[in-house]
Amino acid sequence: MEKFDVIVIGGGPGGYLAAERAAQGGLKAAVVEKRALGGVCLNEGCVPTKTFLYCAKQYAGAKHGADYGVNIDNVTFDHAKVVSRKAKVVKTLVSGVGATMAANGVKVFMGEAVIDGKTADGFKVNVGADAIYADRLIIATGSVTAVPPVPGLKEGLASGFVMTNREILDMTQLPKSLVCIGGGVIGLEMACYLATVGVKVTIVEMMDKIAGPTDRDICTNLMNTYKKEGMEFCLSAKVLEVGKDSVTYEDKDGKHTIACEKVLLSAGRRAFTQGIGLESIGVLTERGAVVTDKQLRTNVPNVYAIGDCNGKSMLAHTAYREAEVAVNTILGKKDAVNYDTIPSVIYTTPEVAACGLTKDAAKARGMNVKEVKAPMMYSGRYVAETMNGDGFVKLVYDTDKNRLVGVHIVGNYASEMIYGAAMMLETELPAEQLKKFVFPHPTVCEVIREALFKL
Amino acid sequence: MEKFDVIVIGGGPGGYLAAERAAQGGLKAAVVEKRALGGVCLNEGCVPTKTFLYCAKQYAGAKHGADYGVNIDNVTFDHAKVVSRKAKVVKTLVSGVGATMAANGVKVFMGEAVIDGKTADGFKVNVGADAIYADRLIIATGSVTAVPPVPGLKEGLASGFVMTNREILDMTQLPKSLVCIGGGVIGLEMACYLATVGVKVTIVEMMDKIAGPTDRDICTNLMNTYKKEGMEFCLSAKVLEVGKDSVTYEDKDGKHTIACEKVLLSAGRRAFTQGIGLESIGVLTERGAVVTDKQLRTNVPNVYAIGDCNGKSMLAHTAYREAEVAVNTILGKKDAVNYDTIPSVIYTTPEVAACGLTKDAAKARGMNVKEVKAPMMYSGRYVAETMNGDGFVKLVYDTDKNRLVGVHIVGNYASEMIYGAAMMLETELPAEQLKKFVFPHPTVCEVIREALFKL
Repeated sequence: MEKFDVIVIGGGPGGYLAAERAAQGGLKAAVVEKRALGGVCLNEGCVPTKTFLYCAKQYAGAKHGADYGVNIDNVTFDHAKVVSRKAKVVKTLVSGVGATMAANGVKVFMGEAVIDGKTADGFKVNVGADAIYADRLIIATGSVTAVPPVPGLKEGLASGFVMTNREILDMTQLPKSLVCIGGGVIGLEMACYLATVGVKVTIVEMMDKIAGPTDRDICTNLMNTYKKEGMEFCLSAKVLEVGKDSVTYEDKDGKHTIACEKVLLSAGRRAFTQGIGLESIGVLTERGAVVTDKQLRTNVPNVYAIGDCNGKSMLAHTAYREAEVAVNTILGKKDAVNYDTIPSVIYTTPEVAACGLTKDAAKARGMNVKEVKAPMMYSGRYVAETMNGDGFVKLVYDTDKNRLVGVHIVGNYASEMIYGAAMMLETELPAEQLKKFVFPHPTVCEVIREALFKL
Repeated sequence: MEKFDVIVIGGGPGGYLAAERAAQGGLKAAVVEKRALGGVCLNEGCVPTKTFLYCAKQYAGAKHGADYGVNIDNVTFDHAKVVSRKAKVVKTLVSGVGATMAANGVKVFMGEAVIDGKTADGFKVNVGADAIYADRLIIATGSVTAVPPVPGLKEGLASGFVMTNREILDMTQLPKSLVCIGGGVIGLEMACYLATVGVKVTIVEMMDKIAGPTDRDICTNLMNTYKKEGMEFCLSAKVLEVGKDSVTYEDKDGKHTIACEKVLLSAGRRAFTQGIGLESIGVLTERGAVVTDKQLRTNVPNVYAIGDCNGKSMLAHTAYREAEVAVNTILGKKDAVNYDTIPSVIYTTPEVAACGLTKDAAKARGMNVKEVKAPMMYSGRYVAETMNGDGFVKLVYDTDKNRLVGVHIVGNYASEMIYGAAMMLETELPAEQLKKFVFPHPTVCEVIREALFKL
């Protein structure tokens, strides 16, 4: 009988980090993964798409090289090469995760974990034909693509006409045209890749804007950029049917059918909590997600749930933080996740990044806020590196509590700038203090500083 | 007689921002500039070089496109186009500074300012044939290229064989070969541009390392990268003579002569304080730089000196901060510059950025420090975007005071990441707190977080 202090179910970002931190904290830790260490994020999510998007950025850079004195005779894009590069990148990183587990003494079990009740030896977890035991469990089973009940969708998925994030990342040949069902972050990033490398992309989105809760001005900015690249957007549009080579949707003007070679289903993700034996120990779920508190505790003592499976934020770095809070809680250290200051990024060109509240969200919470906006053209570096750029930084400031509650950025480098903004929110420093931080010149991040002086 | 609350002498980054902040603070402000608003930084320094370097980066990107699925038949570089793009970028930004001055009600005088004593109407400043007066002066006269007493150097400068940062940025044709006298930041950035676009570059540096006070490991990393591009480095090398088409230096192995088409003189800069009438009001200087305290006050009441002319840091963003501290002091607000947390950036590929102390510098101050290093290969984004990358993040942690005192980064995006690290230093938070900040995944900045967990 193999017994651990803690078994982590699921080896994605939340799971592997939880196991690593638990081991570093002196606990005997195991992680069970059914597919590949790194989970969806590393294998068929964040990292593969970033590989794709960087290649597309290089392609766009080459096409517009003449603006920067780089004369190029003929440029073509080799999508299959990109897919094989992606495979290499993923392989490197997955083996890195494996090495980290080994270095920290975490035992990795490859197989499907099913919780099989609580015994005198602790929680029992079946992995294939074997059983392992632990005093504590961390559920980190992630999420799966949501499949809405649209006629023809299941058949489309079965035939390969419709792809999810998983299949599209292994597709070796580019389609001529693609309809993207859902204009959230996942759909957008993939759509932007495809549009940049020459695919005719149409995004069909149920809401009246793309990119979910992202600041409305930023969504408009992004949409205008991609419209110029030939992308089409159908907003406030409900998908009625997926045909053999088309998608039919309805908007205020009636029904429309778009012919296309492929479809990407990116209408959200749902927590994956079925078939893992949660019921055998009575873990409470709500609309399919495990219910947790700010310490990631479930209703069952010594059982925690982190990452997408608790349905709170569905971002890899939230899972990281939740992993650490769960492990700190196990170790008796006081800790809690502050969900209000978690940054998010959309890796389009221009990049989008945000943390905290938009003006609308703040007002909906009854806060008195002031919003200021600074154009990126203030930045010498931005002007040097961008033709006709219209990026900007928006700050949302709580005038009662005298602190920043939201930072919203569209423009390149936003992805690498936002963590500093998240720190500004987290430290709750007043504007007068924030203005004293020194930003190197000339950088794009200086625009945050410029915006601070508009408060 | 035109009288101001404050006259700023010099319209570079420090000067124009001082005038802007003074006006925003309710003071009647003027700025006097002899050449072009924006000073050296905007016209012949930071911004032009960043324009050059971004173009070179695009060129390198195109040459290595195949790694990322971008196939290119033939790529050539048009340096003259880059120079004309640079001129456009500078023009845009200089006119932006002018517009900001106008919008804030700052009066701009174009001409050479000479202080002409103190009168009953305040300090008198001559601008050409006119005289203006103010109760307070802010000296922001910047710096000039240092010309060491090397035989043949003055003649080389006169003939055009030797260039400074000014001339080289307007050179429309690339030389076949160039010797860079001085391997500090200015020399390095220009050398890297030239080497990337095909010029045979040799750097001759007096010290035993390049890049001034930069962390030694980072210097080695950068040097190895550029050696692969064909750049040569002569360290611990003293320049003895500049000939008509050569540079002669001496090192431990004896004398060597390098034939070259052009020379770049980048052996440092010195504060510019001569001929501006400082002596007419008795402003104290030391080795040519105006002596100031942490509020940028000189020995003469109501006279301040900011930016390069006080010789403290010689960075545009230090000048910005000094401008604000000087104006705050004038306005009676408590403020001081913390020179220990000012970030710096070298815009090479890979980028280098740092703030605070290196391990050696901390030890020299008698501090007990721990140094940790995290490779950038930890970052999924870095692996996706970089072939065989060996970038890293180093943290220097004061184990007595339990706070971070240095962050040193080599690898791309370092430039846009460092301000957050500077905030970590400035807030003086202990590692346990810093570890709780959330970094978006997958980004390169996450490597800072990875390093924090090694402390």
